Formats: sequence, structure tokens, C-alpha cells
Amino acid sequence: MITINENFLKLRAGYLFPEIGRRVRKFAEANPSAKIIKLGIGDVTEPLAPAIVEAMHKAVDEMAVDKSFRGYGPEQGYEFLRRAVIENDFAPRGVKLEPDEIFISDGSKCDTGNFQEIFAADNVIAVTDPVYPVYVDTNVMAGRTGDGGQDGRYGGIVYMPCTADNDFVPELPAEHVDMIYLCYPNNPTGAVATKQQLAKWVEYAAQNKAIILFDAAYEAFISDDTIPHSIYEVEGAKDVAVEFRSFSKTAGFTGVRCALTVVPKALKAYTRGGKAVEVNPIWNRRHATKFNGASYISQAGAAAVYSDKGRQQIRSIIELYMSNAAMIRRSLSDLGYSVYGGVDAPYVWLKTPQGVKSWEFFDTLLEKANVVGTPGAGFGAAGEGYFRLSAFNYPASVREAMDRMAKL
Amino acid sequence: MITINENFLKLRAGYLFPEIGRRVRKFAEANPSAKIIKLGIGDVTEPLAPAIVEAMHKAVDEMAVDKSFRGYGPEQGYEFLRRAVIENDFAPRGVKLEPDEIFISDGSKCDTGNFQEIFAADNVIAVTDPVYPVYVDTNVMAGRTGDGGQDGRYGGIVYMPCTADNDFVPELPAEHVDMIYLCYPNNPTGAVATKQQLAKWVEYAAQNKAIILFDAAYEAFISDDTIPHSIYEVEGAKDVAVEFRSFSKTAGFTGVRCALTVVPKALKAYTRGGKAVEVNPIWNRRHATKFNGASYISQAGAAAVYSDKGRQQIRSIIELYMSNAAMIRRSLSDLGYSVYGGVDAPYVWLKTPQGVKSWEFFDTLLEKANVVGTPGAGFGAAGEGYFRLSAFNYPASVREAMDRMAKL
Repeated sequence: MITINENFLKLRAGYLFPEIGRRVRKFAEANPSAKIIKLGIGDVTEPLAPAIVEAMHKAVDEMAVDKSFRGYGPEQGYEFLRRAVIENDFAPRGVKLEPDEIFISDGSKCDTGNFQEIFAADNVIAVTDPVYPVYVDTNVMAGRTGDGGQDGRYGGIVYMPCTADNDFVPELPAEHVDMIYLCYPNNPTGAVATKQQLAKWVEYAAQNKAIILFDAAYEAFISDDTIPHSIYEVEGAKDVAVEFRSFSKTAGFTGVRCALTVVPKALKAYTRGGKAVEVNPIWNRRHATKFNGASYISQAGAAAVYSDKGRQQIRSIIELYMSNAAMIRRSLSDLGYSVYGGVDAPYVWLKTPQGVKSWEFFDTLLEKANVVGTPGAGFGAAGEGYFRLSAFNYPASVREAMDRMAKL
Repeated sequence: MITINENFLKLRAGYLFPEIGRRVRKFAEANPSAKIIKLGIGDVTEPLAPAIVEAMHKAVDEMAVDKSFRGYGPEQGYEFLRRAVIENDFAPRGVKLEPDEIFISDGSKCDTGNFQEIFAADNVIAVTDPVYPVYVDTNVMAGRTGDGGQDGRYGGIVYMPCTADNDFVPELPAEHVDMIYLCYPNNPTGAVATKQQLAKWVEYAAQNKAIILFDAAYEAFISDDTIPHSIYEVEGAKDVAVEFRSFSKTAGFTGVRCALTVVPKALKAYTRGGKAVEVNPIWNRRHATKFNGASYISQAGAAAVYSDKGRQQIRSIIELYMSNAAMIRRSLSDLGYSVYGGVDAPYVWLKTPQGVKSWEFFDTLLEKANVVGTPGAGFGAAGEGYFRLSAFNYPASVREAMDRMAKL
């Protein structure tokens, strides 16, 4: 008898964003004339930069001709892209990496979801609360947790609350943990981590033989020069951390699909017997066995992000989004909301009015202002009473959304 | 202490194709003037069909403009593609499917590797031997096997030998199994399954509450009208089978990345308590949590496969490859080899000369004829003494490879 992996039955009804999509569709069907403004899912709206478009057309043309056609590429990604990543994203920040420490993929959701697979099922994971749901859900699927409680928390996970009370800075866990998920700039709170704060985590991981899964998907949105873009800017981090990067938000690749994971050769995990084993070749085996490389066209487009033109064009798109974030911050502050984030991250995290639950706020905003955001509770128990607005939309739409919220 | 998933340590050194790549690179470096002909990995060589190229350019252009830019698509794939698949690949063969039974992905390697994840770790798997290594390796990673033996077989897996002795038709397993991997047209043997043979498997699965993971990646290469292209052409198959399809070989998408998995709503698995649960929503949860949709550009290209022009162009490319297969069959037969497959599949499976091991044959062919094939032993113990040649290359190169083999 084929038995199901019953860990899947522990999962709460829906992954957050499909649930939001469902409510929005339902509302839109009932109110076909409503002009809904989406500041919810965090999907980009600006078209691809011309340099990327040009590179992708060129790649398609190459695929149309015998001589330049490309079939299977390296599962780990083309070297032209891996080298561009190293030379542009890491080397200038003093981080030395080799191409075989970079694994190109089709998305950070996949990578952050899949990476846990190469570790034993009884490792204890720690996540911030609120948190990107994929970290939690994929560990539930893998059997690394107990059942879900009323508050949406799962047994066996160490949650590290991040609220206004602690300035959204998680404390080191009091109990022992083995796998620590960190995301900076943070989704959803928009908080960033200083080099000193990251150094504490690296030290903790080294002392406890723990591993840090560092999600840097939003690093391009950092405006403060003192904030590290990579955890590897901290000494010793290569021994204890994996880093995830994505072109999705940086270069508008949410529909194009390209991302990467850095797995330093210095990184070790252990057998039950305590023998150290290198993580890089194990991830390489997993990656090459279950994945067949990202689309060549997507990789060619990603490489164009690092051209002179590409860099300039990307930068001005990021600035546009960040001016949206500033507009949201300013407008909401003027309306009396407590707002966080939105300075070094494309997300503004606001406190819902006293006594208003975050899904309630979601429904009100959708129904009264036709504005879609993301309820904080969707990111975890400690997200209750908060709400995320994304800066990814046209400036005019963001302005309009703010005007409507002012009229509420 | 972060402990590794020790199942990964059970895996044999390298995934088959990277190992072939390694040997070929080594030879090429030592013999820079050798003109190597690759009939190994099964990667396509013909450029993309013009209809696909046109559709992909159009998709890139859409991504360049505000109004038509697309960010995140549905994780399950765009409905335009899911509907095209149903209307063109299934409906004409009498198979009725709904769009939410189709899951578009970035490759069948991913899908066939990932699908096992939603089942409990103690299900018993059955595979044909020889077999596409991904089915086995991903189950090893998931802990569904014991250690690997000298012959490359893993404890706990039920192997169903397919050799010339049984006409490459696996027998129903004598012991109880829960998950059965079948691939027709078969990679690597090139064998096909009749409707009657598939009906036996469907009956077995129904009686034993087992599930069939049916890989139909090569269905487009079937020339015999009586051979089913989908397992769902067999009555009752929707209750017991998942089917994998790919654009990789059909439409030259190995570098573009697009595939799909069919998960009928009728398909059930069971809790340990024996309660039936629908597989479709569980796979949907897994897919939406760990995957963010295939590239829009790839999906737009895949949809063009179903246009009038696309269909014709694809058909003539398939015919080109199949005339290669016929050439290989004929040439090798003339040389006295026993050859199988190559009629309804793009692979020719040959018996190595008496007493010659398959890796030995690989090395000889590489060194003496500069022709790359795939050693049968790489696909499993029962593949020893066999060798796979792929029909995916230019006709002139295949002709040249055959000439060189004649001179051996």
C-alpha cells in the first residue's frame, strides 16, 4: 500500500501567497469594477531592463542556429555567469569564491526549500518569527517538526521573535539548534543586520557546529554603506554558512527564473559519528541529480545584469522601487501608523491599528481601499498585529494606494 | 551539531552522465586533435524550431514592456500551456484531463526526482534494471534503500531485470512493492510497452494499492500506431498512475527547460491508518511551496510546439533523429552487433562483444573511434554487457561514427 508522507498533512491549509491570491480573486469576481492595487505578494512590476532584453533575444537567436545551439548546460550553471557573479557581487566586497562554490538555479524559493534535504531529519531548526514561510513549510515536509499549533507554530522548531519590542533583532537561541535560517535584508520586516550582529551568528554557529542558511535575496536594496551584503563579509562565515541570492527582485526575474546558492568548500557538516564531511560535494550531488540547469536564455539574461548598461538600468529600477518604499513610509507615518523597514529593503512593515488582527486588516484594506498587502500573521505568530506592504509597483499606483488608505 | 543526511553517503561516486563527461574531457585534453562524436548523454543537437524561436522572441518582447510584462506566473504553469497540452497530447488519444491535473515544471529530471518526496520513506520501490539513474538515486537520498552493493544495486529496492532474455519486458514483481517506476519508450533500452502490458501494470497497482510513476518523456518518438503514448490510454490508470512528460527531447528543450507532470484527481495514496488521501492536492502543495513556475519564455516556447507550424517543424526534427536511429541500427546489425530499440525510441541498445564489459567498451570506443556512448552498466547491473547509442546528433556525424565503428 502506497503510504503518503504524513508530514505533509501537518501543513496548514494553504501556502500564504496562494491564499492571498484566492481572496483577491474572490473579491475581484464579486467586484469586477474595483481597481485593485497589489502591494502584496512582492512581485516586481517594472519590465526587464533593455540590456537584459537584448541579451535574451541574442540567446534565443543562438538557440535557432546549429552552430550556437545549446542543449544541456552544466547543472551548476554556465561558467560565464558564475564568474560574473563572483567578480561583481562578491570580489568587490572582499569575498573570494571559486566558480565551483556557486550553484545557479531557477529560483531561491527552490534553493531555500531544497537545501535542508541534505541534512538529517532530526536536526533542530531555528527561524525568526515572522519568517518567509518556505523555510518552515519545507522543514515540516521533511519531518523536522511536530504538529502545528493553534498559533500556527510547529512543535520542534525554535522560533526567534522579531518585533518592535526588540527592534526586530532576534536573540541567539537559548536552546541548542543546528540549522539557522536568516534573511537580511529581511522579508517581511525590512530590517537589516549589521556586521556585528552577523558576526555573533557566525560565532554562535562555529561554537555550536550549527549551519546558517543565509538568504540575501534582497541585498541589492541596501542603501546603508555599513550594512554587509553577504554574510561572507564576516570572517569565518565560509565555515558555517550557505548563502542564497536571486535575480528575481534585483533584476525583475520573477517570471524569468534565475538564482544562485553559494556553498563554500570550507563548509562542513558531520556524520552521527562526528566525522566532518564537506557540504559542497554533497550539495553538488543533489543539485546534479535532481536539477538540469537553469534555462540558457535566463542565464544569458542574468549575465547581462553585470554589463555596464545592465548595471545602470538595474540600479535605476531599484531606485524607483525604493522611492516607492520611501513614499509608503512617509504616507503611513503621516497617517499615524508605526512603520518599519523600507529603507534598505523593498518592504514596509507596519503595525496594524490597536486591536486589529492582520488578516482582518487585510480584508478591510482589500474591501474598502482595494489595496492588497500581506498579513503579518501569514509570516508567523509574532507577525500578528503587523502588515507588509511591498514597494514593487508603479509609483502612480503606490501613490493612489496611499491616497486610498488616507481616506479609510 | 549539524548532521548530514547520511543517505547521501550511500550514493555511488558520481551520477552517470557527469562521470562520462569527466572521462570525455580527460580524453579530449590529452588528444586535442581528436574529433569526438557524442552519442552519449542523449542531448539534442538540432536548433529550436522556427515557430518556437518566434514565440520566444515575442515573449522576450512582452517582458520588455510595462503592459505585457509578466512576473510570477502560476506555480503550476500558465493555463494557456496546460490547456494546449491537454487538447493536443491527451484529448486526441481519448484521455480527458483538467488543467489542475497538469503541473508545468522546468524539467522531468526534477519531477521524477522530486515526486517520491510526498510518499513515506518506508514504501518499497520497484525499478526496471537497466534504469534511468535518477529514479534510484533520489530514492537513495530519501532513505528508501539500504546500502549499495558491489554490483551497484541497493538493498531494499526491487529490481526487475530487462534483458534480451525476456525481450526487455519486466515481470511483475514477486514481492510486494508500493512505487513502480516505468519508462516507455524506455530509456535506455528503447523498448516500448503495448497497451496489454501496461494494463497488467495498472491491474497490479490497483490490486496492491501501489502507485505507478510513468515516465513518457520519449512518447513523441513512437512510430508504431498500436503503442500507447500515455498510460492513461489504459482504463483505470488515472486511479494509480502519475505521468511525466517533457519538451526536452520532443522539442529540443534540453537547454530551455520545460516539462510537465500529470497528477489525476482520481489518484489516491493512504495514511498509515489506511485512510485514502488525494495525491493531487498534496503534490500541488509541494509544487507551490518549493517551486515558483517555469520561465515564462520557456512556457511561451512550449506552447508554440502545438501551433500548426510548430507541430510540423517538430515532426521533421523527430524524423531526422529517427532516421539516425535507423542508420545506427542498420550499420551495427551489418557489423554483427545485436541491436535493440531505435524504432519507437531515440536510443539504440546494443550488446557489447562477448566478454567485453560496458565501461571497457566505452573506453575503447572513445579512444579508438572517438565516439562517446553510454555504458549499460551505468544504468544498472542488468545493463552490463550492453551499450546505449543515442540518435541525437547530426546525420553526418552519426554516419561518420558508424564508419569509424566499422573500422574498429
